Parts: sequence; structure tokens; C-alpha cells
Amino acid sequence: MDICEFQNMMRRLYFRKDSERGINGTYSWLMDEMKELGEALDANDKEAIENEFADVIAWLASLANVTSVDLEKAALNKYGGKCPKCRSSPCKCPF
Amino acid sequence: MDICEFQNMMRRLYFRKDSERGINGTYSWLMDEMKELGEALDANDKEAIENEFADVIAWLASLANVTSVDLEKAALNKYGGKCPKCRSSPCKCPF
Repeated sequence: MDICEFQNMMRRLYFRKDSERGINGTYSWLMDEMKELGEALDANDKEAIENEFADVIAWLASLANVTSVDLEKAALNKYGGKCPKCRSSPCKCPF
Repeated sequence: MDICEFQNMMRRLYFRKDSERGINGTYSWLMDEMKELGEALDANDKEAIENEFADVIAWLASLANVTSVDLEKAALNKYGGKCPKCRSSPCKCPF
């Protein structure tokens, strides 16, 4: 599924709630999901890890919806097949 | 671009570095990008916001690569057109 299509699906599912919650509330929820992903990684729990990856990309798409950002366009504008710093693929940055 | 294709592009660009950095290091970098997204949102800087959204989804894909998670599959397993809690579209959860 396209990143754009996933973001649109999240809009259909959650936009009313996301817009009522607002930018700060949605960012805060995304941060909570990030911490839960960290906990799942620490526990090395494969099912929980996949579940939390799903939640993080879902809440990231929700946050993009409430901030009117096209997530796919933003991603490809910066990472369009080359490293944005060294312009190589694979990346040849020295760090 | 498919979520899966984006993840593969990130693998081509960064997998060697990502795998050397490891799971904890890549998670830590993703968390830094999350904080930068929060700062860009606080500053209401549209260009910085788009830039940081790109970095967050890019580092999320890198973290999925080093943890051998198929990000698209994980996302669609949980959010396949319906809310995973109430099974409705749009979501009808009471909270």
C-alpha cells in the first residue's frame, strides 16, 4: 500500500477524533507509542514489536493529517533514492 | 510509493550503517528525530515540519530493517481498513 494511501486510510478512520485531539495531543500520543515500541524492543517480544511498529506509523500518519502534511511527498522529497547529505546510494557519508 | 518499497529503498541506502549502529542506536536516533519533529511543530515551521516527518518515517523504516520487521505488513495486519478496537470505519470507539 502506498504511504499516501495508508495516510488516507487513517484519515477515513480517525480524522474526526484526531482533529478534535489536535496537534499537541496527537504528537503526545505518538510519543507514547514510540516509548511502547522501545519497551517491546527491550523485551524482544516479536509480536509486540510488530504491533508497536504498526501503532507508530499509524499515529505518524494521523499527526501528518492534523498538520496537513503529505507524508509520502515529504519522505520522497528528502529521500528520493539517494542520501540527502552525500547524494550517493548507498550512503557514503563518513559518519 | 509503497511502504514496503520505501523500506527497501532505506535498506539499499543505509542498511550497512544501520546494522553496524544496531537496534538501540537506531531507536535512539529515531527518538531524536521525534523530538526534532516536536520542536518544528512548536515553532510552526512548515518546511522544518515536512523535513522532520521525512526523517521520522525514514528512521522508522531503518529501525524496521535492523529488527527484520516488514513495516507495511505490520501496519496492514493491525490497521486493515477498520479500527482494530471497534472494527468500524470510521472508528466508533467511545474515547
